Amino acid sequence: MEDEKGILFILSGPSGVGKGTVRKALFEQDPALQYSISVTTRKPRVGETNGVDYFFKSKEEVEEMIEQNELIEYAEYVGNYYGTPKAYVEETLKAGKDVFLEIEVQGAMQVKKNFPEGVFIFLFPPSLEELKNRIIDRGTETENLVKNRLLEAKKEIDMMDEYDYVVVNDQVKKAVSRIQSIVVSEHCKRERVSKQYKKALGRVDL
Amino acid sequence: MEDEKGILFILSGPSGVGKGTVRKALFEQDPALQYSISVTTRKPRVGETNGVDYFFKSKEEVEEMIEQNELIEYAEYVGNYYGTPKAYVEETLKAGKDVFLEIEVQGAMQVKKNFPEGVFIFLFPPSLEELKNRIIDRGTETENLVKNRLLEAKKEIDMMDEYDYVVVNDQVKKAVSRIQSIVVSEHCKRERVSKQYKKALGRVDL
Repeated sequence: MEDEKGILFILSGPSGVGKGTVRKALFEQDPALQYSISVTTRKPRVGETNGVDYFFKSKEEVEEMIEQNELIEYAEYVGNYYGTPKAYVEETLKAGKDVFLEIEVQGAMQVKKNFPEGVFIFLFPPSLEELKNRIIDRGTETENLVKNRLLEAKKEIDMMDEYDYVVVNDQVKKAVSRIQSIVVSEHCKRERVSKQYKKALGRVDL
Repeated sequence: MEDEKGILFILSGPSGVGKGTVRKALFEQDPALQYSISVTTRKPRVGETNGVDYFFKSKEEVEEMIEQNELIEYAEYVGNYYGTPKAYVEETLKAGKDVFLEIEVQGAMQVKKNFPEGVFIFLFPPSLEELKNRIIDRGTETENLVKNRLLEAKKEIDMMDEYDYVVVNDQVKKAVSRIQSIVVSEHCKRERVSKQYKKALGRVDL
């Protein structure tokens, strides 16, 4: 696998599906994974740390990054910016390491335009009633924001067809295990590895 | 996953790569997997059981099956027939169970023609020197057969581009784990599952 470039994995899905929880569990299981931390203009929630969960930036700072083309994707979502720093992703892939992005659906679609070779994983709620309850129960939003989030979630689920994989978040542990299988499996894809194997073949006289 | 059809997985690779060993280890780990037993006209090796490793048949019997179109694939390999019974595969897939075929490369290519929706896994030797040694060390063949097998192996490796995945058989345990990941991952592919999820979506008013 010496010459192989890293793979860009994009974990996305509707608002409230539990992307952050699954991503955290995934990275706890495998500390070698490279996670790309997003920039955002939204206020930190209780327990969130700058530089760990997000880079919390001002609106002006993020708009400057957009202008300088320093974001691989960005989205405005419920009045805030979310974006992914470009340089980090490119350098990590080049070094042969996989990169994980956990982002909103809007951002994932921009990444798809810029990196069609990325592997796009859609996290799906175990049931849509539960998604609804999770959004309501989050309790950090006003009634108006809850309504907005529900409308967004519906639009986001309609984007499922743009993804390579759909993983049900019925249990975090199971969802993580499925994502780990997708990572292993993608590294076995013939179009990714056949070049190296053919090189090996060239060295031997059967 | 209620409505989902089973997936046909084809495990193949060059002569001597260890297909049989990997397949056995895979089925020991997961007894629920459905393995399609091949028919063959070759003589049983020591330790092989009729109806477990193969259905050992006469040349006439297999030729009759071919004529009746009862084989999903068949190949003549080093003077013997190897083939896969059609009815078993189709019934098992319909029942929502995955089917595993462990077959020679020639047979895999016929399956690809008949079942392009199958998932084709190419087992690759850790090194080509080792493949050569394994073929020589098997010790059940005459010198002439060894030479034939080496020539076949080279042709077979050239067929790698026809496969979906390449799995290195560096250690049986690792190869099995990679194949298990491919199975899980294939069941998460969006084009397989999106129909069911959309059905679920239809039932809920967000």
